[in-house]
Order: sequence, then structure tokens, then C-alpha cells
Amino acid sequence: MVTTALRTDIADRLSAMRARSPLVHGIVGSVTRSFVADGLLAAGARPMLTETLDEAPTLVSVADALLVNLGSLSTDGRDGCLPTARAAGARPIPWVLDPTAIGLAPARTPLAHDLLGTGPTVVRGNASEVLTLAGGGPGGRGADSVAGPDEAGQAARSLASEHGCVVAVSGPVDLITDGDGVVRVAGGRPVLTRVTGTGCLLGALTTALVATTGGLRQERGTPFAATVAATALLTVAANRAGDLGPGSFRVALLDALAALTPEDVAQEVELWTP
Amino acid sequence: MVTTALRTDIADRLSAMRARSPLVHGIVGSVTRSFVADGLLAAGARPMLTETLDEAPTLVSVADALLVNLGSLSTDGRDGCLPTARAAGARPIPWVLDPTAIGLAPARTPLAHDLLGTGPTVVRGNASEVLTLAGGGPGGRGADSVAGPDEAGQAARSLASEHGCVVAVSGPVDLITDGDGVVRVAGGRPVLTRVTGTGCLLGALTTALVATTGGLRQERGTPFAATVAATALLTVAANRAGDLGPGSFRVALLDALAALTPEDVAQEVELWTP
Amino acid sequence: MVTTALRTDIADRLSAMRARSPLVHGIVGSVTRSFVADGLLAAGARPMLTETLDEAPTLVSVADALLVNLGSLSTDGRDGCLPTARAAGARPIPWVLDPTAIGLAPARTPLAHDLLGTGPTVVRGNASEVLTLAGGGPGGRGADSVAGPDEAGQAARSLASEHGCVVAVSGPVDLITDGDGVVRVAGGRPVLTRVTGTGCLLGALTTALVATTGGLRQERGTPFAATVAATALLTVAANRAGDLGPGSFRVALLDALAALTPEDVAQEVELWTP
Repeated sequence: MVTTALRTDIADRLSAMRARSPLVHGIVGSVTRSFVADGLLAAGARPMLTETLDEAPTLVSVADALLVNLGSLSTDGRDGCLPTARAAGARPIPWVLDPTAIGLAPARTPLAHDLLGTGPTVVRGNASEVLTLAGGGPGGRGADSVAGPDEAGQAARSLASEHGCVVAVSGPVDLITDGDGVVRVAGGRPVLTRVTGTGCLLGALTTALVATTGGLRQERGTPFAATVAATALLTVAANRAGDLGPGSFRVALLDALAALTPEDVAQEVELWTP
Repeated sequence: MVTTALRTDIADRLSAMRARSPLVHGIVGSVTRSFVADGLLAAGARPMLTETLDEAPTLVSVADALLVNLGSLSTDGRDGCLPTARAAGARPIPWVLDPTAIGLAPARTPLAHDLLGTGPTVVRGNASEVLTLAGGGPGGRGADSVAGPDEAGQAARSLASEHGCVVAVSGPVDLITDGDGVVRVAGGRPVLTRVTGTGCLLGALTTALVATTGGLRQERGTPFAATVAATALLTVAANRAGDLGPGSFRVALLDALAALTPEDVAQEVELWTP
Repeated sequence: MVTTALRTDIADRLSAMRARSPLVHGIVGSVTRSFVADGLLAAGARPMLTETLDEAPTLVSVADALLVNLGSLSTDGRDGCLPTARAAGARPIPWVLDPTAIGLAPARTPLAHDLLGTGPTVVRGNASEVLTLAGGGPGGRGADSVAGPDEAGQAARSLASEHGCVVAVSGPVDLITDGDGVVRVAGGRPVLTRVTGTGCLLGALTTALVATTGGLRQERGTPFAATVAATALLTVAANRAGDLGPGSFRVALLDALAALTPEDVAQEVELWTP
């Protein structure tokens, strides 16, 4: 029953995203920047990926939502991301924190905590990243998690409650929580881990979807539904793309992101609540 | 009649580009850098994409032409682009200015004007960018134009006359002018706007084509024909690629850029003069 | 006979790489970074591409091997690469130097020599780059070689002997030497030169393969076999991908890197010793 209402919410969020074509400002590592831009365009959003202190805090004023992803952090991104997040919070527009590889590097960990303190609408990471951000757990190896999403479930719930945000933990099964509600989304394809940037793309799609909520953080259900919708979209697109080699899969994933209707996604996604 | 001569010019410029394999030095935003490099290689040119103040002004000395594209401008690119454009002008070699997202950000607008003052061979942008560079008009949203190419036609002509350059305005119909002559190129595919970097690639192909003119700016017809040839090449390649999903379209576009002969392009392009 | 033992070594190195999924830290130019990451994932390794002085010298402590590639060098990469190479040498883990475009730019040439002095496990480049690093020869044009691999054979042997490293020279026929032994690997496809980053990917695959040797540089045969195995892998994958347009070839190459077994590669590669 809960999931029937949720399927309607998923379709609604996706329809709103397609109707609005939100301008997504992304501070995203250089390795995955191009794929993130292509994925946003394919899904029906518009990317603006710029990170310098010179420009990013100003340019965010025309965006509908912001993504701060710490993957392969450049000096430009290190200097620009916190002022840009603060500018997003001041307008306010919704914004998503993706603390890639937190825990591994001295520069990145305090930065991720400062960003968390700035009040993201959504935090998205793998289990290691969420555990580390919540104050414990292993740091992962590069962009890979060394913990499972269930181990991170309790940490995610605490993080969500404490910071008033949605927390999404990706893995073989994805978990999304706003502190009260928890939804799990199953599926995807193992090949997702053989294509660079699919985690970053999930963060970007989440940003495009929360853009439709207008940043009304008191309306808690909405960023939550938007985050579930983004996870559903990527998962169903991956299933449509199928079991291909990694080069072909990347192409088919972009095609599927463009071809899927909101109803397709809402109907095909495998999800459950506790 | 005019267009028959122009078709011959288009084929000639494309043949010259294939024969010479020009080395194109590009200062190009990080989001589209990889696709620009692939598109240049596919079309028969050779990319050298480097932007630092340390290296770019020196490395341009071995290039056949330079592209300065302000998309997702890094600190390196901000510092390196003006000295590199000046070095290109001093040799001289032809160079192309692509003032991506001008008007939106405080750092970018004066820089674009300084670059314009350095004397580009060609200016390429969408309608919003050309209107803004000419001194008025809306600033667009991210890389998207909020004005049509016809609105920008008069601004393009003034800009071309005042600065002695060719101006190319991209959109559903592209417009190219050297201040006197005007050519419109029709076609392309809507999916071009769903693939990141096709506008940047057009700037890069324009650079590869103007490289064949040796920077003889007094010989006005030649950079003009080269710019028309670049637009024709991308448009015909997009038509050959066809109506595909965005992932497949990107792949097919690169294949078409490599497979098309100069004669194919000259024959298939839809163009008209006023 | 020599080549029969070498085919066994190739299969062994590839099996070890697949079994270990080495974490490859790469400092790689922004143009090819995304393709390098995808190629590593497809082949069975894991990429971590980060270059800042802030983070790279620390993050290398969790890696199994390091690649330093000077392509489209950013200020971040310029500042970060030497301390990171020193940190790799201090652990020690194996590391690969790819002196892209050395000889062209004043900032890059002394840096490449400083890196060489830090003791790479393997040096990989085209003929021009290897000749320049060895102290003479032409500087190339951009990333292209203006010399053949055979001209560079003697320079490669001297470089390998003097610095106690393996030297790999890529071209229509690749040459790999540790100062004593020399192996040539034939094949690949002309289209490899129409796809951005295939040379960088070869350097990255070499890094993933030398990661399996644990940096035991006294055990000379092993990094040598690992380097031959990387060249064999890319060459056989290119042959499997076949004669396609450059867009399709890139996709098929990634698929082939994932699909090939160690035995396929060892059996299909064309190689010979003097």
C-alpha cells in the first residue's frame, strides 16, 4: 500500500522534472563530469558544471538546484564548493552532497563535514561514505565501498534525523531514508560498477529531481520522493540497458534515460518498505 | 548560383582540412574536452588541448589554429586564454572565440570582451551569446540560448563588420556572416541539444577548417567559407547519424564525421543566401 | 621458444590483474581521464584519478600502483605529480611514467626529467617522447610522434639500462625492453589513432599490470612481462573491436577489454623477439 502511493509520487516527480527541465549546477570531479552532463541531458534536465570560486557562487543564482560531488576534487572545486553551497542555501534552492571518497584524504574529510553543516537537502553516498560522514566506519578504497548498504542503514537514519535531510545509500540494494521512512530499491546491473560515474550520475539525477521540490524542506515527503524517483530512474534505465559490455552499456543507459516515461519507471522499479 | 559556388568552396575547405590534418590547439572547458578531441580526430584534424599560463602560450607556436572556448572555465583556462590568444594573433594563426555562457558570470564577460579585442578570425556562439557579446540581449541560462538565431542576425553582422571577423550563430538554423555576406544552414537534429558538447565541437571544427586558410584575414571569403564548411560538416553528420537516443547518437555522429567525404557534405547540406 | 614462455607470462600477469583488481592511482590529463577510468574498469582494475598536491601524495598510500601521465597537464597536476611519484617510490609501489608531449613545452621537459630521476618502474611513450626523454630527437607535434618506434629502439634500451626500468615505445609496432630483452608486439588498428586517449589507456593498463608485480624491481622479468601483457591486451582488444568508425570503435574496445580472457590475449597476440 505504502509502495502504491510511492509509485505515484515517483511518476509525479519524474513528470515534474521533464516538464521543468531544471538547470542543475554541478560541482563534479573531472573524471565523471562529461558523463554526468550527458546523463542529465538524456534524462531531461540541463547541466551547468562549473566550480571556480570566481564563478560558481555567482552562477548558482540562476540554477534550480546544486550538486556538490567531491570526486577527483581539483583545487578549483575545493575552493569553490563551500561558498557555492552556502549561496544555494541562502536563496534557498535544494542541494545534494555526494561525499565521494571521504575518509581517505585529509583535505576532503573536514570539507565534507563543513558541507554537511551547511544543510544539504540530500546526502548521497555508498555505505563507506555514509558511515564515515556519520562519524565512523571504514573509509573505502577510492570510490569503492567496503561496507554494505544495510550496515549503513542505521547511520543513514541518524544522519537524516540529526541534519534534517534525506540520506541515500547506494549499493546492490539502495536505501533511502528521511529519518522516519525507509525505502529500499532493488536491481540495477552488476555492470554499473564497471562504468565510471554511475554513482555520480545518481547524485546528479537526484539533484534534478529535488529541483522539482523547490527546496521546501519542511515538506519532508517531497525531497524524499524525489530521491526515490532518481534512484528508480537510474535503476530501471540500467535494467532496460541490460547485460552488455561496459562500452555498450554506457550508450544504452543514456538511450534508456531519454526513452523511459515516468510511468515506465514507476511501474518497473522494484521497491519495498520495511 | 551563389550557393553553387559556395558548395564548391565547402568541398575545397574540407578537402584541404583532410589533406593537412591541422593541429588544433584548444582551450576548452573540461566537460566537453574529451568529446571535442574525439570529434576533431574523427573529422581528420589533430587536437592539442592545454590551457595553463605555463604552457598554452608556448605550445600554440606549433599549432595551425587556436580555439578559445569559455565553457566551464577553470582558473587555469582563465589565466591562460588571453596570453594564448595574443600569441596566436602575433604569429599570426587563425583563431576562433566561443564565448560560452557569456553574460552570466562576472569573471567571464570582461574576459570575452578582452578576447574579442584581440582580434579573433571567427566568433561562434548561440544567439544569446552573440547578442551579449555585441553589447546587449539576454544572457541565456547556462549553455542554452534564450533567443533565436534570427534575432541575433543583425547583431552578428555588426559584430563582424566592426571587428573584421566572421560570426557564426548556431540554433535550429545556423547563420554565418562576414558582415557583407550571410549564409543560413538548415537542419541538424533536435537530439544535438541532448548531447553535451555539440556546440563546442562546432567551434572546434570551425577552428580546424579556418586552419586551412592560413590566417589570411584580408582574403575575407576564405575564413567565411571555412566557417560555412564546418557548420555544413556537423549538420550533415548529424543528419547521417539520424534520430537516435542520445547515447547512440553521439557514437553515430563520430562515425559520420569520419566517413563523410567533402563531396557528400557539399552536396547534402541545406543552405541558402538571403 | 622465447615467445612460448612469454605467452605464459602474459596470461599469468593478466590473470593476476583480474584476481587482484588493483587500485590504480592515475595522474592523467583531463582530456583522457574519463576514458582511462573506463578502460581500467573494463579490464578489471579500479581507477582513482586525483592529482592535487593536497590529496594525491596522501591518497597514493592506498593504491597498488601509480601512473603519472603528463598529457594536458593542469596546474594541479604539475604541482602534485612529483611529490606523488616520490611517495610511490618510498612505499614502494610500482609506477609508470608517460611523458606525453615532452620536448614541446618548457614546463614539461624538466618535470619529465625530474620524474625519470625518481625511478619509475616503466616508462611508456611514443618514439618522439622516448627519444626526447633519452636526451635527443624531435619533440613531436602535440601527442603525435614524428619518429618511428624502431628509431627509438636504441634510445629505449639505453634509457632502460641506465635507469633500471622497462621502456615501452608505442607505434604501428610496439617495442618493449628492459635493457636486455626486447619484444615487439604487432597489430592494433589504424583507427586507434583516431580515438582520443588510447595511448594514455595503454599507460594505465601497464600500471594495472605492473601492480601485480608488487614493485619488486630486482625481479626484472616481471615488470617486463607485465608491460608486454598490457600491450598485448590493448592490441588484441583493438583487433577484436575491428575496423569500425571511431565512435563505434571506442565502444567496442571497452567491451573487448572486459570480454577477453587472459588465454585469449596470450594466444592471439602477435609478438616476436629479435
